[in-house]
Amino acid sequence: MRAVRLHEIDRESGPQHFRVEQVDDPVPGPGETLVKIARAAFNRRDVFISQGLYPGIQLPCIPGSDGVGTVAAHGEGAQGPPPGTRVVIDPTLGWGDDQRIWRRTAQVLGMPHQGTFAEYIAVPAENVHPAPASLSDDEAAAIPLAGVTAYRALVSRGGCTKDDVVLIPGVGSGVQTFVLLFAKKIGAKVIVTSSSDEKLERAKQLGADVAINYKTSEKWEKDVAAVDGGPSLVVDSAGGDTFFRAVNVTRYGGRVVVYGGTLGDAKLRPFSLFWKQLDIMGSSMGSPRDFAEMLAQFDPSPGSGQATLKPAVDKVYPMDDVVAAAESVDKGAQFGKVLLAIGP
Amino acid sequence: MRAVRLHEIDRESGPQHFRVEQVDDPVPGPGETLVKIARAAFNRRDVFISQGLYPGIQLPCIPGSDGVGTVAAHGEGAQGPPPGTRVVIDPTLGWGDDQRIWRRTAQVLGMPHQGTFAEYIAVPAENVHPAPASLSDDEAAAIPLAGVTAYRALVSRGGCTKDDVVLIPGVGSGVQTFVLLFAKKIGAKVIVTSSSDEKLERAKQLGADVAINYKTSEKWEKDVAAVDGGPSLVVDSAGGDTFFRAVNVTRYGGRVVVYGGTLGDAKLRPFSLFWKQLDIMGSSMGSPRDFAEMLAQFDPSPGSGQATLKPAVDKVYPMDDVVAAAESVDKGAQFGKVLLAIGP
Repeated sequence: MRAVRLHEIDRESGPQHFRVEQVDDPVPGPGETLVKIARAAFNRRDVFISQGLYPGIQLPCIPGSDGVGTVAAHGEGAQGPPPGTRVVIDPTLGWGDDQRIWRRTAQVLGMPHQGTFAEYIAVPAENVHPAPASLSDDEAAAIPLAGVTAYRALVSRGGCTKDDVVLIPGVGSGVQTFVLLFAKKIGAKVIVTSSSDEKLERAKQLGADVAINYKTSEKWEKDVAAVDGGPSLVVDSAGGDTFFRAVNVTRYGGRVVVYGGTLGDAKLRPFSLFWKQLDIMGSSMGSPRDFAEMLAQFDPSPGSGQATLKPAVDKVYPMDDVVAAAESVDKGAQFGKVLLAIGP
Repeated sequence: MRAVRLHEIDRESGPQHFRVEQVDDPVPGPGETLVKIARAAFNRRDVFISQGLYPGIQLPCIPGSDGVGTVAAHGEGAQGPPPGTRVVIDPTLGWGDDQRIWRRTAQVLGMPHQGTFAEYIAVPAENVHPAPASLSDDEAAAIPLAGVTAYRALVSRGGCTKDDVVLIPGVGSGVQTFVLLFAKKIGAKVIVTSSSDEKLERAKQLGADVAINYKTSEKWEKDVAAVDGGPSLVVDSAGGDTFFRAVNVTRYGGRVVVYGGTLGDAKLRPFSLFWKQLDIMGSSMGSPRDFAEMLAQFDPSPGSGQATLKPAVDKVYPMDDVVAAAESVDKGAQFGKVLLAIGP
């Protein structure tokens, strides 16, 4: 089969090292399902691996955590949808039974386990879920890792309800875009920030109620605090100064969920934390239950009158243009997910 | 009546300005109960007020949040225990109905509302609770503000169970001593730290399983992490470097509850937070429900075989020695509570 592989990694030139090659087809082991991939999606994780910014890298590897395709075959004893079924893959392997935290041995698809940037992949049958009928392959492929990360942060950890005012700093990344979609589906009021007016405009089209440019409005937290007394729930992946300011504007009794830290260490003022009785919660990826609940968001019950939720897709690159796709993710200029077309 | 009052405050000499004087007796208004105080207890809050380190100070004031005494009279329509009943006073006025957070108008006894450092005090009848029968006046007076702060932090917010390993940094303060008592009553394993071997010894006598001197063992977090894989629950009032190190040693899926910040701002590493999926929770004082649940800890059900919980009392000062008592709290050398004998 054809697959994208990394043979070398480098802090500077990492994204240029993705290569399309011919490799042996995977064979589904006992309890595994073989999926023929149609579309895969990039996550920052894939680029971080190419840059050596990930622990325990094993080379060569086939990256990719997100994939949609059709069931091709089942290994011995595998319980899964019949061959030909269109499916999406839960990228977390071996989470375990504890909703609160994964097993120390859990993995994400795409290094060391073979990833989705390949024509075929064998995964545990329980990781294979029928794709939401209302979504195209492109849309469904955009979902898995970003969708489950967003859902766990916003709902399973953050407990978002329709009464919340949700602050989403730095909208535009795959995950933050899903946070926006889920928060609006729940009926919460949503404030987004970005340094890009274009991203703010796209976020408004997806339902954001208030959009604030933190570059042109330096005291953005004043604008945020002015919305209904400030956010009751923040979903942050920045850390650093963004986290500090977000904590400052969070309402009494509010929650701040953190699933990333691109800006690094943050200052935390104990007084803000205890006087406002805040909850600050770390979140990462999601459990099998998180994944199933998240996926159900995309198939509204018939007759419910609910609009179909559409994942934001930035661009679909042919598999052979994987380097261009990786460079686009590295620059962070996208709004929504960057995809790879693996099959037709 | 005789009462302790502050007429002036000063950052340096604050504790020296407490004065015993003759003032008018309070008269219980509608719905209020008049309590004749036997014992009162100091909290750092009282010293902070004398040093001007509290917002909205009104002078002169009668400080004191903690008191035990007997019901002297009821105002119009007040529902409370009959006159002569020995009672402790819930120091939080007007918390409101939300367990998660107080009303913005809530107050703590002792500035601006008259405090317990006086022979009589009038408070809302619902703030008056029968004193635990198993405790002396000294012991009961030690409970209110420190006890409810500890209980809310450890139990209502932290959700402590017998399966937890609880880290209590800086044991010795009134609140941390109650955290230790409650955690041991629940059946958790408890690790305490202090810079004083004497305080560590006292903590062991109260049931602490592991006691670590953070002055003589600079890498104390290594010792802490070695206990059953590290704490699953931390109750911290320091902030600063203590908080940062405590987060580092907290187990995957663990909780860190913060109710103070004597060391000031802390560094928070987003990766530690989201990778370990931690909960960091602010806590302060407690709701009426917290107070009632906390007080019930001191009266074991008859025949339960449970030992009686005894609050740690450092020293009882005569009312006229209020300055010496305040200076002792200011130095922080005490283990457990510093009391004032108001009545016989």
